[in-house]
Amino acid sequence: MTTATRSEHDLLGDRDVPADAYWGVHTLRATENFPITGTPISAYPHLIDALAAVKEAAALANEELGLLTPEKAAAITAACQEIRSGRLHEQFVVDVIQGGAGTSTNMNANEVIANRALELLGHAKGEYRHLHPNEDVNLGQSTNDVYPTAVRVATVLAVRGLLDAMAVLQEAFARKAVEFRDVLKMGRTQLQDAVPMTLGQEFSAFAVMLDEDRSRLAEAVELIHEINLGATAIGTGLNAPAGYAESARRHLSAITGLPLVTAANLVEATQDCGAFVQMSGVLKRIAVKLSKTCNDLRLLSSGPRAGLGEINLPPVQAGSSIMPGKVNPVIPEVVNQVAFEVIGNDIAVTMAAEAGQLQLNAFEPIILHSLSESVTHLRAACLTLAERCVAGITANTEVLRATVENSIGLVTALNPHIGYTAATDIAKEALVSGRGVAELVLERGLLPAERLAALLRPEVIAGSGVPVA
Amino acid sequence: MTTATRSEHDLLGDRDVPADAYWGVHTLRATENFPITGTPISAYPHLIDALAAVKEAAALANEELGLLTPEKAAAITAACQEIRSGRLHEQFVVDVIQGGAGTSTNMNANEVIANRALELLGHAKGEYRHLHPNEDVNLGQSTNDVYPTAVRVATVLAVRGLLDAMAVLQEAFARKAVEFRDVLKMGRTQLQDAVPMTLGQEFSAFAVMLDEDRSRLAEAVELIHEINLGATAIGTGLNAPAGYAESARRHLSAITGLPLVTAANLVEATQDCGAFVQMSGVLKRIAVKLSKTCNDLRLLSSGPRAGLGEINLPPVQAGSSIMPGKVNPVIPEVVNQVAFEVIGNDIAVTMAAEAGQLQLNAFEPIILHSLSESVTHLRAACLTLAERCVAGITANTEVLRATVENSIGLVTALNPHIGYTAATDIAKEALVSGRGVAELVLERGLLPAERLAALLRPEVIAGSGVPVA
Amino acid sequence: MTTATRSEHDLLGDRDVPADAYWGVHTLRATENFPITGTPISAYPHLIDALAAVKEAAALANEELGLLTPEKAAAITAACQEIRSGRLHEQFVVDVIQGGAGTSTNMNANEVIANRALELLGHAKGEYRHLHPNEDVNLGQSTNDVYPTAVRVATVLAVRGLLDAMAVLQEAFARKAVEFRDVLKMGRTQLQDAVPMTLGQEFSAFAVMLDEDRSRLAEAVELIHEINLGATAIGTGLNAPAGYAESARRHLSAITGLPLVTAANLVEATQDCGAFVQMSGVLKRIAVKLSKTCNDLRLLSSGPRAGLGEINLPPVQAGSSIMPGKVNPVIPEVVNQVAFEVIGNDIAVTMAAEAGQLQLNAFEPIILHSLSESVTHLRAACLTLAERCVAGITANTEVLRATVENSIGLVTALNPHIGYTAATDIAKEALVSGRGVAELVLERGLLPAERLAALLRPEVIAGSGVPVA
Amino acid sequence: MTTATRSEHDLLGDRDVPADAYWGVHTLRATENFPITGTPISAYPHLIDALAAVKEAAALANEELGLLTPEKAAAITAACQEIRSGRLHEQFVVDVIQGGAGTSTNMNANEVIANRALELLGHAKGEYRHLHPNEDVNLGQSTNDVYPTAVRVATVLAVRGLLDAMAVLQEAFARKAVEFRDVLKMGRTQLQDAVPMTLGQEFSAFAVMLDEDRSRLAEAVELIHEINLGATAIGTGLNAPAGYAESARRHLSAITGLPLVTAANLVEATQDCGAFVQMSGVLKRIAVKLSKTCNDLRLLSSGPRAGLGEINLPPVQAGSSIMPGKVNPVIPEVVNQVAFEVIGNDIAVTMAAEAGQLQLNAFEPIILHSLSESVTHLRAACLTLAERCVAGITANTEVLRATVENSIGLVTALNPHIGYTAATDIAKEALVSGRGVAELVLERGLLPAERLAALLRPEVIAGSGVPVA
Repeated sequence: MTTATRSEHDLLGDRDVPADAYWGVHTLRATENFPITGTPISAYPHLIDALAAVKEAAALANEELGLLTPEKAAAITAACQEIRSGRLHEQFVVDVIQGGAGTSTNMNANEVIANRALELLGHAKGEYRHLHPNEDVNLGQSTNDVYPTAVRVATVLAVRGLLDAMAVLQEAFARKAVEFRDVLKMGRTQLQDAVPMTLGQEFSAFAVMLDEDRSRLAEAVELIHEINLGATAIGTGLNAPAGYAESARRHLSAITGLPLVTAANLVEATQDCGAFVQMSGVLKRIAVKLSKTCNDLRLLSSGPRAGLGEINLPPVQAGSSIMPGKVNPVIPEVVNQVAFEVIGNDIAVTMAAEAGQLQLNAFEPIILHSLSESVTHLRAACLTLAERCVAGITANTEVLRATVENSIGLVTALNPHIGYTAATDIAKEALVSGRGVAELVLERGLLPAERLAALLRPEVIAGSGVPVA
Repeated sequence: MTTATRSEHDLLGDRDVPADAYWGVHTLRATENFPITGTPISAYPHLIDALAAVKEAAALANEELGLLTPEKAAAITAACQEIRSGRLHEQFVVDVIQGGAGTSTNMNANEVIANRALELLGHAKGEYRHLHPNEDVNLGQSTNDVYPTAVRVATVLAVRGLLDAMAVLQEAFARKAVEFRDVLKMGRTQLQDAVPMTLGQEFSAFAVMLDEDRSRLAEAVELIHEINLGATAIGTGLNAPAGYAESARRHLSAITGLPLVTAANLVEATQDCGAFVQMSGVLKRIAVKLSKTCNDLRLLSSGPRAGLGEINLPPVQAGSSIMPGKVNPVIPEVVNQVAFEVIGNDIAVTMAAEAGQLQLNAFEPIILHSLSESVTHLRAACLTLAERCVAGITANTEVLRATVENSIGLVTALNPHIGYTAATDIAKEALVSGRGVAELVLERGLLPAERLAALLRPEVIAGSGVPVA
Repeated sequence: MTTATRSEHDLLGDRDVPADAYWGVHTLRATENFPITGTPISAYPHLIDALAAVKEAAALANEELGLLTPEKAAAITAACQEIRSGRLHEQFVVDVIQGGAGTSTNMNANEVIANRALELLGHAKGEYRHLHPNEDVNLGQSTNDVYPTAVRVATVLAVRGLLDAMAVLQEAFARKAVEFRDVLKMGRTQLQDAVPMTLGQEFSAFAVMLDEDRSRLAEAVELIHEINLGATAIGTGLNAPAGYAESARRHLSAITGLPLVTAANLVEATQDCGAFVQMSGVLKRIAVKLSKTCNDLRLLSSGPRAGLGEINLPPVQAGSSIMPGKVNPVIPEVVNQVAFEVIGNDIAVTMAAEAGQLQLNAFEPIILHSLSESVTHLRAACLTLAERCVAGITANTEVLRATVENSIGLVTALNPHIGYTAATDIAKEALVSGRGVAELVLERGLLPAERLAALLRPEVIAGSGVPVA
Repeated sequence: MTTATRSEHDLLGDRDVPADAYWGVHTLRATENFPITGTPISAYPHLIDALAAVKEAAALANEELGLLTPEKAAAITAACQEIRSGRLHEQFVVDVIQGGAGTSTNMNANEVIANRALELLGHAKGEYRHLHPNEDVNLGQSTNDVYPTAVRVATVLAVRGLLDAMAVLQEAFARKAVEFRDVLKMGRTQLQDAVPMTLGQEFSAFAVMLDEDRSRLAEAVELIHEINLGATAIGTGLNAPAGYAESARRHLSAITGLPLVTAANLVEATQDCGAFVQMSGVLKRIAVKLSKTCNDLRLLSSGPRAGLGEINLPPVQAGSSIMPGKVNPVIPEVVNQVAFEVIGNDIAVTMAAEAGQLQLNAFEPIILHSLSESVTHLRAACLTLAERCVAGITANTEVLRATVENSIGLVTALNPHIGYTAATDIAKEALVSGRGVAELVLERGLLPAERLAALLRPEVIAGSGVPVA
């Protein structure tokens, strides 16, 4: 059985492509040149949507400026809209990690859009004399402005999903903070017993961390709204007529609903990856905090009998193939691993950004890949953690209260009343003898019983007059 | 339309699984718990093969020790062999990044093997009273010895592929070293003209770097041959009878053809990820060198008219959607990006290894994922670089020779004859005046013409008496 | 010869300290416990100043609240002011990398201030019954609020120096952008000749990158102004009376001149290192851009005869001990290395932040060390680059113009007029034949001579109608 | 008061240097060019010793080959020996982070040695016509072979110190493993109670990890013994006569006592940093394991009342400025921080190695700095941990035994006897009811009492027949 083909031509000569493929010769060569990950760009739907949006905006700008006929513009925009509605994504076949600064991704888009537009105009695929991937779909554009712009739009879309997921997780922690508001426990510093607090305060801190991280992420994504569409090859705007950059930006904002702005200095913007490095740094920050939070959840729920046993994570699967009844903190553990991945991805982004040379950074494909992976995995991690873990956490209230009442750390509250030196002696003897702080203070006559009882009320110690959001 | 299901039971209760699924309730819960990457472990065929090999070896050991009936052992080993021949891989559905230290991967294997074995014994899937995923397939095992052992076997298999690919690339460079053996050029240090050498020497260095890296990789993979099968839960070998560890290792070596050894201290081996960190470090070393090599190739081929233009990379695709005729070094560029990814993955491995606690490292799934990605992508990168780039490189011999003859760096060869101070003066004047070194030396009467000519023969300078492999 | 000593007492017993030492027993033990780097905290003058400022603010707040007598408060504040004026720094002897979350640094400060205050009150060093390091100098405080607050104040002070240095470097690039405004050159993408631009545009991009980085750094340092003074041990404010946090903040703002704010949730603030991770991420961004810029400077100045030779860096030292007359780009090279160090430091900060547990991060000392090193080295790098390199850069104007006129990339400008396909043919033939673009276009009759000349004017191509800041 | 000076001359002109300085004009310029860290190379005594050894070896080789008079050779070697005996180190004043690939370090050495040799010959400093820094001390050498060779020798010397320190720490853990050999405790996986083991097994694992790491470090340092002395500028050996490389290597081996080998391919060796990347990777591995070990020590000693409280670390200083009696695990904490620093340094080394271009890596100074810091800090960390922490650790034997006897994990041992499913039911009920495993098994009549008691003997469970080194 033979497969029908059509012949296409490029700089290097003629090649046959499958007759029913919307992609063409440039895409074909790219698939041969980059057999690296096996993951096509179609696995990044935000990127495909963003590419279609950019091409549509460019076509509208070109039509507006009289460079593209209304017929061609209509066909191109219709093809782009089909793609943005989810069709033809499987035609985006080039590997996500590719050389050429994204040229193959851009050409893949040019070819798919051109061939679909040709069909809409009643022509066969490949009849580029009627509508050409480079001369019409890519008109006034270069990979060097199209690709970064599409990556930015895709990143904004993806980050919105992460912001939402972080809000869900924050809310889950905040609900537990309220639920555990009156649960007294020992606070710890350096893993050593410190002074009392409430479990609600502990969970409130998790919520506040997420809230701060969301604010930072929202700021970082602002920077990603700056695009260089209209810069063409190196930022000088060669072949993009006056008014094109502004028109294309306006259309792209309208299509995507995003408040995009054109960079003030397009030469700089075309070579710069600073906003991606910043975004990756903030994702790393989020990863660091999530990982710390999960470490805490795993530690607080350690046990059931030889651990801290302060809280219980909801069991979601059997924990062991050999140890019956064992249940493990598998949800925090998977979140930890996503965090490690994100921190690793940040190094890949960093190295790629540093490797830019002169007027372009040729390594944006790995930046796209790394950022996209970090954002989508963090999103999944936040939702999973919220729904499969935090929402079901319970407290071992009695255990917690007992450790407070038995604690040596209570003596800290007596510092202002008996002095650090005397308090140190009490603490030392309590530790050695196993006795309680209160009885030792009374025995030594350092404070009257009633006064002492008032000072050592854990609620007072945990709360004492400090604003706790 | 309804889908037929069967009911299965675990610690948390009953759940329906599709009647035709070889996996069971533990796998079902894991797929629900870890919707992180969307990449199932079936995407790691070496891992699936290795899991089946481990289970087969364990069954043979258990049979040998009289713990498993010959019938059950036969059914289990038959199922494992089917998997190793490529069947049932699609049944390995849990996400590669998972909590639980690989428990879900192990249970996925136990369930698929048990259900296939049940079928082979004439029973229906799910009739675990005849042959049980935990009590028979997992007999004498724990995730904590099975999973690390499988990851190690899988890593060894993958690394062999990388070693081969590196040899291909090394050979490609070595062939060019011979081809360019007589092509004179200026060597450069700190991007400044230094002294003459041959292009063959330059390419020979690339080959030698790869050769050294291969040696290091071969050493690192040796360490991965140490397994902890028989350690069970924490290395004390609980529930694994005397002789089991040795028998299982012997069978696993036979099945895989690998010279595996059992760790001397199983408690240590069960918690230790040192060999993975070492492996990742060596992969990072390879990435560093490959990236440096590709940077050099891109720099030497810069141009065509405003660059160094010393060599030509074979064109493999059109380079630009806007700049006609432009051809870019896309193959080295994609290799650079793989290198950045590998360096990032090393950080993920590092963090995962550091996060191990007490008797286990719960984060081996991300280690598996990161190592696997690094090894397979590096392999693809080496082959692509060899075949689509290095093999077709040509030299601009005339250009290269002219820069040598015109160079100021030649004066270095006169140091022993006219002194560093006089040579510095010549160099300085040559730079300012644009004149040649030789004419200035003659003009100043520092050396007789004949002697000078002999000293300045580039071939002599490039070669001078030093062993160059 | 014997050294006079005095005896001091702590939890672990009695120890002799040198009679003339302002530090005491806690400091002594710390110096014995942490013989790690050999670098005392006195090497971080901003930290010492910040510690003194915090202690002074705390004393004023305590006096205001009636907890400290005016005499003691006066003595403490006088001692702190002496330290802030540069005295007694050599008494801060504990190693910068220390366990204990900064306790040893805080105790070193408490002891030095107490002993100096004792002297000012007419007592001998060590007579702590008159004024006590813990009970008076540390009154209402904990290491866990004092140390992070001091680190933040110190970081703000250091970052201001970096912001200034970046402005100096930005201005140096901006001046060159003006100077080179009319110098035509070939722009390059992926190291391959692209289209014309001006050298002024290239240097302007360097300036703009720095400007953006400065904005990001200014935003990041804003976050560092949030302090947790008043949180005491774990954020519950135990032993800090109502009004203390606000009063101490107010005094600290006045003393330092910084608009400090108290964190809304002190439990969260006491355990959180997010702002440091963010700061480190922004420093890494700056490092990435500086490194890219220096890579470009080194590449553009490569030669003198076998390189690009587009610009000349001012020679600042002889480049080689063996190659006479060689001058190397040593200033950009040292900046590259600082960048690598900063990127490495970011990983140290990241790991330290991730390792925080429960109510505290015990690893702030390495965070302080890493951030401080990054900020001060970047500052030195920026100033050195500005003054010893950028300010003296000259352009090889004739060489640059010739490469433009000879370039194939000019053909890009003809795309809109002859089409991408025809332009590709021209480019291909130009490359093979070595001929010029213009003569080939004319030969093929694609455009009339006059029109062609107008289209190919490099100034037009470089500038074409796009806003370039 | 005026300072006496002498005038020196170089490529850039004349400069005054202090009359009593052994360094000269090249060093002067370098100190002005690189005001980066403030840390002179004299802070790296191994490097200074190594430089002197290299220069001595070169002089002896040159004398042997008849290129240097016996008088000059004697003066140079005498000067070098003085330096290696610890004198004149303060004359090595250039900043450790410097541009120029180490040229300034090499020139600093050339100048100091030349001036000291001049004195020994009865001349004044600066009278270079009698003996010249470049023409005599640097004869047959280039920074590009001298500096890497010296860095390698220095690294070998430093690593030996680390290997010794690791042995001390290993021995400390091994001693505890013996001491705690009979102390039963619960093993934990994923922070959840698993099955019994001994505390001796736990400490034995720490010792074994260190032993493995020492083996890896010993292997990595082997690679560092390969030097490129004789390569001169780019590896072609220009200006180094036949026999020089071998003679210099032989003398350097004799002087240092190290089995050095000359690289087979000097062009490759001159540009390659692979061995440094490998060394840094192994140091990172050591850091990872040390950090994990310290995490465990901190966790096991958490408490005193609300933690695991399994072991006690010796108190080495008061833990808190506010919480009386608190003692913190400050020694493990400082080791954690060194580990984070080492992991960060590995990234700096990685980036520096990747940034090498063509025939040289200009960034070895930061590699030297990072490696040196990692090695020396790790050494201090190992010794401190051994002496101030591990040696004094005690076990809470009774607490540990009680948790074993009370544990649910004991049920795992019954798997082979009652099956995984029944065992799971027991575990589940034990958890819910708070009752013991044994009583539930007996109540259900699953095993006779005597048999059960035998199976549940913790010693049996912890030991069960598996070899534990």
